[in-house]
Amino acid sequence: MIDLSLIGIGTGNPDHLTRQAIRALNAADLILIPHKGDGKADLADLRRSIVAEVVTNPATRIVTFDLPVRDAATADYRRRVEDWHDAIAALWASEIAAHLGATGRVALLVWGDPSLYDSTLRIAARLRPAPQVTVVPGITSIQALTAAHAIPLNEINGPVMITTGRRLRDDGFPPGTDTCVVMLDGECSFQSLPPDGLEIWWAGFAGMPEQITERGPLAEAGPRILERRAAARAEHGWIMDIYLLRRTAQA
Amino acid sequence: MIDLSLIGIGTGNPDHLTRQAIRALNAADLILIPHKGDGKADLADLRRSIVAEVVTNPATRIVTFDLPVRDAATADYRRRVEDWHDAIAALWASEIAAHLGATGRVALLVWGDPSLYDSTLRIAARLRPAPQVTVVPGITSIQALTAAHAIPLNEINGPVMITTGRRLRDDGFPPGTDTCVVMLDGECSFQSLPPDGLEIWWAGFAGMPEQITERGPLAEAGPRILERRAAARAEHGWIMDIYLLRRTAQA
Ligand SMILES: C[S@@+](CC[C@H](N)C(=O)[O-])C[C@H]1O[C@@H](n2cnc3c(N)ncnc32)[C@H](O)[C@@H]1O
Ligand SMILES: C[S@@+](CC[C@H](N)C(=O)[O-])C[C@H]1O[C@@H](n2cnc3c(N)ncnc32)[C@H](O)[C@@H]1O
Repeated sequence: MIDLSLIGIGTGNPDHLTRQAIRALNAADLILIPHKGDGKADLADLRRSIVAEVVTNPATRIVTFDLPVRDAATADYRRRVEDWHDAIAALWASEIAAHLGATGRVALLVWGDPSLYDSTLRIAARLRPAPQVTVVPGITSIQALTAAHAIPLNEINGPVMITTGRRLRDDGFPPGTDTCVVMLDGECSFQSLPPDGLEIWWAGFAGMPEQITERGPLAEAGPRILERRAAARAEHGWIMDIYLLRRTAQA
Repeated sequence: MIDLSLIGIGTGNPDHLTRQAIRALNAADLILIPHKGDGKADLADLRRSIVAEVVTNPATRIVTFDLPVRDAATADYRRRVEDWHDAIAALWASEIAAHLGATGRVALLVWGDPSLYDSTLRIAARLRPAPQVTVVPGITSIQALTAAHAIPLNEINGPVMITTGRRLRDDGFPPGTDTCVVMLDGECSFQSLPPDGLEIWWAGFAGMPEQITERGPLAEAGPRILERRAAARAEHGWIMDIYLLRRTAQA
């Protein structure tokens, strides 16, 4: 039987690691670290440096493997992602077979928390025979954002919608709430909203040494964010960002 | 100048503590631990045992203070809460003045993450002169719930609403999403929904040694949850619970 631990590592700050995460990493026989090549190399490097820093168990083997690329020839987006997940699961299976055989504890480091806009749980569900899956919760980029600004997520007893850049562009400000958090947004989709009556709290590289923040009425802060985001992206070669939008008055 | 750190400690599992939280606790000159008396005593005890376990700095002073009670004579709910927050801020101020004077580092342990349905940031905003406030993010009960069930929070690229039991009772299943997380619900408010086409993932004491979980179609799991919640509450004298509801078909 294979035990598979999906370990939330927080959003790029090694100090986001919990004691539970550190214990789980040290309990593993095998830690699998995916390597994405070039642009996003920072993340594989960060995973390796986290492991180097906190894993003290000499019996833990650390194996890096190259992630497959999505097949651009597959026209259908869903299909392309499904195929890609199949390919990743097959790679995990062969690494596990090669290094452990049929029994042992495998750990994977997951950015932020494994529950939030992450495919690791869905890939794990493809493994046969099914492993025993354990999730170790991690600090999410939502928490890193609100911590960076020292703000509450919700208004008093108010609801909060978590959504994506695409949704915001397609459907506008979500219904039923005055607060939303936008993730997976490569295009500063807040630009698609009429800015009046909206306030924004934005962070790039939240929780990381490179962290940058902006806040203010969307009409004023929006252009500043576009500029800082472009500059930071040019400087680092990549960026991850997230923001909270709040209705402060009837738009 | 007073530095005030609001430190997320996770949801009752001392292993939810991050390295950043442990560092921040050890950097404090003064750690204030509120004591609520009787029923919820577990939480003050848990805070004290966390501090005893991870604080190794001999210069850190640990001070417990009795929380004021809300004045039941104040009829208006908002007013009652505002007055209560004023009273808590005044208590913090007098403890800080007594133990530190005008300069030093103060830490408060906040359940889960300080951004989520928690009043500590709003109480801190009442202090004069305004302290320098730092937030250390913590594992939320939402992450503890999804980890307990090893499930994703969102459907693929789908939105998620975080809401309260009262909202669910008053407004029904939130619009614009197929997934919602319900917190602050003392009344199993899922009972107010037509159960068809809904699935529930529930946890009491998520992440804690007492953790209990139930899952399934709401029509079947709902009655089981009512029963287990009542039994657990009777056994422990209190309970905290949280759940995720997902539309699995058109209701
Ligand atoms: C694939 S999702 C993974 C989210 C992750 N599981 C979590 O718990 O935060 C990636 C998105 O998370 C957000 N994100 C992750 N890390 C971030 C960081 N350090 N700063 C800002 N946004 C971040 C961005 O919106 C990014 O597009
Ligand atoms: C005042 S809010 C505080 C939330 C906290 N700041 C967080 O990040 O989870 C209290 C609510 O959080 C949820 N909660 C907190 N800890 C929990 C636990 N260990 N298990 C289940 N629910 C919990 C319950 O819904 C409870 O009513």
